[in-house]
Amino acid sequence: MERLRSYWGWGYEDRFPDDDARAAIARRLGAIFGAAPEPLPLPSLDSATMPEPRYAPPVELRGFGSTDKRVRALHTYGRGYRDLVRGFAGDFSAAPDWVFHPTEEQHLTALMRFCEKESIAFVPFGGGTGVVGGTEVTASGRFRGTAVVDLSKMDRVLEVDGVSRAARIQGGATGPRIADQLALHNLSLRHYPQSFEFSTLGGWIATHAGGHYATLYTHIDDFVESVRMVTPAGVFETRRFPSSGAGPSPERLILGSEGAFGVITEAWIRVQARPRWRASASVHFARFEDAVTSARFLAQAGLYPTNCRLLDAGEAMLHEVSTSGTCVLLIAFESADHPVEPWMERALSIASDLGGDGDEPKYTTEVIYSTPPRASLPAITTATRGRPSSIDHDADDASHWKRAFLDAPYLQTALVSLGVVCDTFETACTWDKFPALHQAVTRAVTAALKAECGGGVVTCRLTHVYSDGPAPYYTFVAPGRAGMELAQWSKIKAAASDALIANGGTITHHHAVGRLHLPWFEKERSPLFESVLAATKEKLDPSGILNPGCLLPAK
Amino acid sequence: MERLRSYWGWGYEDRFPDDDARAAIARRLGAIFGAAPEPLPLPSLDSATMPEPRYAPPVELRGFGSTDKRVRALHTYGRGYRDLVRGFAGDFSAAPDWVFHPTEEQHLTALMRFCEKESIAFVPFGGGTGVVGGTEVTASGRFRGTAVVDLSKMDRVLEVDGVSRAARIQGGATGPRIADQLALHNLSLRHYPQSFEFSTLGGWIATHAGGHYATLYTHIDDFVESVRMVTPAGVFETRRFPSSGAGPSPERLILGSEGAFGVITEAWIRVQARPRWRASASVHFARFEDAVTSARFLAQAGLYPTNCRLLDAGEAMLHEVSTSGTCVLLIAFESADHPVEPWMERALSIASDLGGDGDEPKYTTEVIYSTPPRASLPAITTATRGRPSSIDHDADDASHWKRAFLDAPYLQTALVSLGVVCDTFETACTWDKFPALHQAVTRAVTAALKAECGGGVVTCRLTHVYSDGPAPYYTFVAPGRAGMELAQWSKIKAAASDALIANGGTITHHHAVGRLHLPWFEKERSPLFESVLAATKEKLDPSGILNPGCLLPAK
Repeated sequence: MERLRSYWGWGYEDRFPDDDARAAIARRLGAIFGAAPEPLPLPSLDSATMPEPRYAPPVELRGFGSTDKRVRALHTYGRGYRDLVRGFAGDFSAAPDWVFHPTEEQHLTALMRFCEKESIAFVPFGGGTGVVGGTEVTASGRFRGTAVVDLSKMDRVLEVDGVSRAARIQGGATGPRIADQLALHNLSLRHYPQSFEFSTLGGWIATHAGGHYATLYTHIDDFVESVRMVTPAGVFETRRFPSSGAGPSPERLILGSEGAFGVITEAWIRVQARPRWRASASVHFARFEDAVTSARFLAQAGLYPTNCRLLDAGEAMLHEVSTSGTCVLLIAFESADHPVEPWMERALSIASDLGGDGDEPKYTTEVIYSTPPRASLPAITTATRGRPSSIDHDADDASHWKRAFLDAPYLQTALVSLGVVCDTFETACTWDKFPALHQAVTRAVTAALKAECGGGVVTCRLTHVYSDGPAPYYTFVAPGRAGMELAQWSKIKAAASDALIANGGTITHHHAVGRLHLPWFEKERSPLFESVLAATKEKLDPSGILNPGCLLPAK
Repeated sequence: MERLRSYWGWGYEDRFPDDDARAAIARRLGAIFGAAPEPLPLPSLDSATMPEPRYAPPVELRGFGSTDKRVRALHTYGRGYRDLVRGFAGDFSAAPDWVFHPTEEQHLTALMRFCEKESIAFVPFGGGTGVVGGTEVTASGRFRGTAVVDLSKMDRVLEVDGVSRAARIQGGATGPRIADQLALHNLSLRHYPQSFEFSTLGGWIATHAGGHYATLYTHIDDFVESVRMVTPAGVFETRRFPSSGAGPSPERLILGSEGAFGVITEAWIRVQARPRWRASASVHFARFEDAVTSARFLAQAGLYPTNCRLLDAGEAMLHEVSTSGTCVLLIAFESADHPVEPWMERALSIASDLGGDGDEPKYTTEVIYSTPPRASLPAITTATRGRPSSIDHDADDASHWKRAFLDAPYLQTALVSLGVVCDTFETACTWDKFPALHQAVTRAVTAALKAECGGGVVTCRLTHVYSDGPAPYYTFVAPGRAGMELAQWSKIKAAASDALIANGGTITHHHAVGRLHLPWFEKERSPLFESVLAATKEKLDPSGILNPGCLLPAK
């Protein structure tokens, strides 16, 4: 039996924290907030409100379309804070009229023709895990209705080139679907966004999805060899090259296009042999500044750690990595080719040179399985067939941090069911600007939490590090006022976003723009670049049906 | 006294091979071709033919403009084979009417207004070292004349951010100008195209220039943090971020724009501490296929060598790296942070596992200078002040190969003066396609050399390697027939380009498109992408004055 996904919250229904777990979370929050929030009754689909579909597609499109209430509810929102609150409240007024599940490109083309003719907004949909309103379109103005187009039935690995280490993969394939199919070839994608279990390759490409690698392969962008995109103007396909100097990069126009230029149906993606050697360590710092300098030196050292994740004291406490008030730098290396001791030793030496109180670093190196003869790479081995479908078979071993990372979205859903205002936001800036940005953001969010919620907590981690700057990731949690949560959250989100832009940060490192970040994206980008994006859309989507209001203001 | 650059050939006049050297080259060629070519008399500027300027700019533009014959000759062509042949023949019929040397952005804007009003083609010009006709525009159709805009007076490093390891540099700065100014901060760019001494940052960005790094930082693209470009529609500036997930990348639209969208006046560029540890080795292989597999495994191992350059037997012989008929894989690592023995040891182990005849690899590790205390990085030290301006002070030590690499363009000029047909071309393809592409290209060029020149030599090296494929670089040399060289060359070039495109290669990995590669670029790119590029140009350069006929067909 297929596991049911929650129609309003994160992930699988069977993984949602039960009443005991919610009560435990409430007690922990009580210790932070002063008073424990009350668990609220969980919503039911029956009581969810949703308008009737406003149009009827022709019979040839109905074959892969649905107006089932649960299906429409599942495709109404992403899984950001605003989405969870509205879903929890049973407010599905933004539900799409129809949800389509195409199985081939002809379906997409036929649907685009219909939407153009009937003025219906066409919204490409991957895993529905976005947090920026990227798939939420309300039919307004010139649109008669909405069609959400779920790519999940186009989920195959079509071709594997073991020599070049690349695979042709359909846009609707989720993380586990890709992992399972590549595992048959002893290959791995090594791209683990937090949404890994549900989000799709096409969604990753459309939104610059960030993976678990802290360096080098930080975004899906770095794995993309070529892309095939179906647009209302025809098929836009790029050629498979490891690199090309012929004109501006066409792939880079598609990466980050957020469904406004076309539907990504296929891509050739660089894949890798599965890692055999791993090292991981955590280093504690009394002072956040020293930990940041350490992360910077690591990023500039040319060691390219897999993980270089810095948790400030609040994060370390929340994730139970440190309860002593220290900041923690998590460092990891992995390789399919060689033991990584020299890399880790040098990394730890850099970190300990700068480490305030000099905690003894933990240091492990594991050999995952014995080295097959080189000539057999990338052979298909029976050992990898029929493995269970889960991130665990192909990722780092489950550490405390790792489990917390993947469970965080479940926790956020549980917090919403406790009436708590809680969200994350992220950015990237150059190292020289980080101290002032961090101070300004922390102050702005703290002040907004105080004003809107009477208090709350804001924590920071660095998720990715570059030679020229970090990608800081912030979490805030505060008590909500019943029925006022969205108003409270909006003020906090705006304060945070204003502080980012004013202090040299980008509005997003890997959460994308969607509708939520559009006002700040407009401040960040050159007006000339906006006109170029608009001209591009005009060429690829002349009727403007694709995800209107996303990336560019709705016309 | 300023060193004179040759008005027709490569580089400085004082470096041009003298008659004895040319005679020695002719003798060596005699051993290959059967008969030694005759050195031809060198041309003089006096006998060069050039039309009179067709327009007169207003007085405020004349202040930074010139119609001097030598200046116009220097700015007529790039330095590709066709350019050298025409320059050698004294044919400067394509000379620009005026050459401008702006010193500030206002000059550019005023010049653009004038060119728009008077229908004059505006051609941005960096070092003039291109090999694809990227700066050669003949006024035809709707244009009354041409203005070549040389950025060389905008050549300063304006700002250095030692914390983020980035510098704001003007577009007209050449390699040595950048190196000298960064050396004052103990920093280095580490980007060495073969044209390093003359080409400019703006030119590199406009053409995806390839550097000496074989992995990771293969193109200038990988160093670009943000760009400022002056267009007829206004200034297009991007923000300094280490990375951003907000929409398609604006920098990637400018990278490879080849002067058709605007003039790159500034960029923030990622820079590095100067390397202290280096290792280099060369490994010989009896069979080219084994050497290619070795390069592939190295590219896929996650070791990221600085150099991973594979010379086939012909290249190894031409460059006197091997005279025994073996192929040679040159491997190097460099680091400013740590000794690189473990990296090199693993690389050599991979290479020797696959090495046909198992020549003993040479292995060296040098400490360039002692490690300063970390805290002082990137301090300004007196030791780095006032160093001589040359690539040598900041690059790998001059090996046989290295000297040959930098002298190759001088050699090509000398060969032209011997009436020899000689050129290089390059591509990138996935590893799975390389064997068939290599065979097809070698056959096509060999057949064309036979048909056009009665014979000749074609050799191959891999200059850059990616996990999913190599960048092969080909050289051909053949005896020319006096006065027929360009016709002979055209047939060979077309045969090579057709073979590249037919076998899954890109028309260029780092030489750019220009006017020479445009017909094959048009086959390579999606028609929809062409329409997007045209729409972009329409927005940024509505009058179409910028480098017409480059990147897009002339209108």
